[in-house]
Amino acid sequence: MFRPFKLKAPYFEIGPKVYMYGDEALDLAIHADALCRKFDVEIIFTAQYTDISRIAHATTHLKVFAQHMDANPVGRGVGAVLPEAVKQAGAVGVLLNHVEKPLGLSVLNETIRRADDVGLATLVCAATVEESTAVAMLRPNMVLAESPALIGGGKRSEDDALEVARINAAVQAVGNDILVLHGAGISDEHDVYQIIRSGANGTGSTSAIMRSADPKGMLSRMIEAMSRAYRERTTD
Amino acid sequence: MFRPFKLKAPYFEIGPKVYMYGDEALDLAIHADALCRKFDVEIIFTAQYTDISRIAHATTHLKVFAQHMDANPVGRGVGAVLPEAVKQAGAVGVLLNHVEKPLGLSVLNETIRRADDVGLATLVCAATVEESTAVAMLRPNMVLAESPALIGGGKRSEDDALEVARINAAVQAVGNDILVLHGAGISDEHDVYQIIRSGANGTGSTSAIMRSADPKGMLSRMIEAMSRAYRERTTD
Amino acid sequence: MFRPFKLKAPYFEIGPKVYMYGDEALDLAIHADALCRKFDVEIIFTAQYTDISRIAHATTHLKVFAQHMDANPVGRGVGAVLPEAVKQAGAVGVLLNHVEKPLGLSVLNETIRRADDVGLATLVCAATVEESTAVAMLRPNMVLAESPALIGGGKRSEDDALEVARINAAVQAVGNDILVLHGAGISDEHDVYQIIRSGANGTGSTSAIMRSADPKGMLSRMIEAMSRAYRERTTD
Amino acid sequence: MFRPFKLKAPYFEIGPKVYMYGDEALDLAIHADALCRKFDVEIIFTAQYTDISRIAHATTHLKVFAQHMDANPVGRGVGAVLPEAVKQAGAVGVLLNHVEKPLGLSVLNETIRRADDVGLATLVCAATVEESTAVAMLRPNMVLAESPALIGGGKRSEDDALEVARINAAVQAVGNDILVLHGAGISDEHDVYQIIRSGANGTGSTSAIMRSADPKGMLSRMIEAMSRAYRERTTD
Repeated sequence: MFRPFKLKAPYFEIGPKVYMYGDEALDLAIHADALCRKFDVEIIFTAQYTDISRIAHATTHLKVFAQHMDANPVGRGVGAVLPEAVKQAGAVGVLLNHVEKPLGLSVLNETIRRADDVGLATLVCAATVEESTAVAMLRPNMVLAESPALIGGGKRSEDDALEVARINAAVQAVGNDILVLHGAGISDEHDVYQIIRSGANGTGSTSAIMRSADPKGMLSRMIEAMSRAYRERTTD
Repeated sequence: MFRPFKLKAPYFEIGPKVYMYGDEALDLAIHADALCRKFDVEIIFTAQYTDISRIAHATTHLKVFAQHMDANPVGRGVGAVLPEAVKQAGAVGVLLNHVEKPLGLSVLNETIRRADDVGLATLVCAATVEESTAVAMLRPNMVLAESPALIGGGKRSEDDALEVARINAAVQAVGNDILVLHGAGISDEHDVYQIIRSGANGTGSTSAIMRSADPKGMLSRMIEAMSRAYRERTTD
Repeated sequence: MFRPFKLKAPYFEIGPKVYMYGDEALDLAIHADALCRKFDVEIIFTAQYTDISRIAHATTHLKVFAQHMDANPVGRGVGAVLPEAVKQAGAVGVLLNHVEKPLGLSVLNETIRRADDVGLATLVCAATVEESTAVAMLRPNMVLAESPALIGGGKRSEDDALEVARINAAVQAVGNDILVLHGAGISDEHDVYQIIRSGANGTGSTSAIMRSADPKGMLSRMIEAMSRAYRERTTD
Repeated sequence: MFRPFKLKAPYFEIGPKVYMYGDEALDLAIHADALCRKFDVEIIFTAQYTDISRIAHATTHLKVFAQHMDANPVGRGVGAVLPEAVKQAGAVGVLLNHVEKPLGLSVLNETIRRADDVGLATLVCAATVEESTAVAMLRPNMVLAESPALIGGGKRSEDDALEVARINAAVQAVGNDILVLHGAGISDEHDVYQIIRSGANGTGSTSAIMRSADPKGMLSRMIEAMSRAYRERTTD
């Protein structure tokens, strides 16, 4: 855990993966930055490595994250993503262990420690409650829990609330300062609304935004829904 | 092979690996760019992904390459390096299959095809003569041959000349438009001089530059030596 | 290439992958062994590592291959498949670089050299004509070409003949002692018949046999078809 | 955790890696089997895949483990080590996540679940206390902790006792039925004696046995030392 990193609920992660890059990613990032200010929320934008510096320089509130980095120390390692380079380019954190970029347990541990040392926040993916607690043992800043039980949706807000509470409790039993994002097939603003009402302090989305005919519009609706759901929940 | 990519002998590859990044890498790249003009030579600079756009925008003659990229199409692939993103950031080529980032044969083939399609030159590493010819079968723009027989040096210019000629002949028997760089433990300007005199049209260096107390000075001496050796050899 | 390894056309590779293992694999292997004698053909059986010794001891004509092995020398390497262990268990060869177990170019080269030294034949997969020639440069005993152009079938024996000839010629231009197996969505005995008539000296199948309600019956029909097609072709 | 698997303290793991295989491994395994009976201790022998069936059939008390296996279901996966095949060959467990065969967190979780389903005990490596607890969250049968703090030795039995106790407590806080082996540069019978006296219920060794001029003699001395140390400790 990189302690100086702070994130105030509610928070949202936009994951462009390799769907969006360059000018188009920059444009969406600038839009997201405006949404941070408008709704007083936090947004993490996990950019392509090549886009980090441009996006970091063009935004003020957005938390720019890398999609991965390596644990290599300065030195050898052609093709590796150096933590110091990610940091100097303007990122404030890094996503690790996504199902599309899985890391060995020891490597994950080392990479979190490298992030702590370099000064980058860590957002670490986990597929199940067991994995979420195992990840929490390694003390990242945040766990991105993608519980299969949450994927699917429908009119099942009560089950969702139980599942969200179960994951939050499990992670916080290990470390009560570890934040949890609940990502789970969030396909539109209604899913965002529901999961935040179900008790999640944060969520995120990739394909629903990236494949939308109007990514900026979809993102605006999701952020508005998150803000509203969180306000309603905390003032209930 | 991305046909529009042209490279005039002599040429040199600077490989910062994860030794150098950010402002320091930018500074060395700008210096290298000036050397291109001063000595009328070509220099490839294989930058960290995060540095590509800054270096590409700050230089005019330098060929900025990525240290690796993935074959992923636009879409899924958290943490992958998208060819289109590398291209749009300003790179003109990509290094592939370095011993520190080895690629499976099929993946290597796919990645070269992706580079051809996106418009990026390919510089593909090979450790032996057999691997150089196998790589040549996949039709990259350039092979970076690091023959064990060339590593070591000493007063063995005659052997070197045979080895360089042997590799050049083997690659060109497969494709006579494929360029060959001979990298082989190039530790100073004398090694650069010798290998170019031995028949290489291009060479490169990483650690001798990166670990030097004065990287720009070392690079200047190497480029001057390359230029001089090439001129002497071609006017003999 | 492990020179002492000989294979007389026609030849067939049965690839159990992880479909079949233990007693059931042993039973199929014993059946295949009888087919070798009955039809005077060669059959390669790429067994699970754990089954190699039992199958090797229970058969006389079958060529037992491992599905993969590592290049590790004797020593460190928990979980690695040691060439010497594969050899001593009774295997006579090894399959390498299958699309489900891809190898880096350098590792592939090293592993073929290890096989040569230990005394194991090498059967190396390649997905395209270019890959087949690249693989041939590394001098294995055999290339297992799975050309996309051959997959699909239908009434296209003329095209098949061209494609088979094209791959054979490309590989043999690199090394005329390298054997070629043409595997390509072989789904029944008719596919076997057609590809052998089209000029292939060898072929193979996995899923059509493994998923058959009667694997031994399917194998018998395929081997009979191979034998017949080869006899007809060579006596035409 | 595969519950039917039972292991009574003290226990010892012999890891032949790829040092020893075939007849020589079988010979050592038979010797180890006799030591189990003579000293009334448990010995795990992590064999090469190719040796599992022979060793399992030739021994009665030895716990034969695979050095790794894959999570693949029956079906595709050339070169993969199928859990069912490992089981049917006679193994009773599997070593996972050794530093020389690291597994991604999710894959590790899946593989432990596959072992549970197929009926194989799991012995999972961890390099630090944090990793040990993370691994324990995934509920294997045993954790093989190789704490850097234990490596080295010398006259530091008091520190060792603290470190062993610390790891045991951390793992058992997560699951009090999870066994812990403490492996840590065990180079001879004195190291075995010391670590068992320090509170470990189990330990193990690879290179000290494998590189010994007399592996069977070294193993005998280690097992005798383990038995004596455990008896002394538990009767103090």
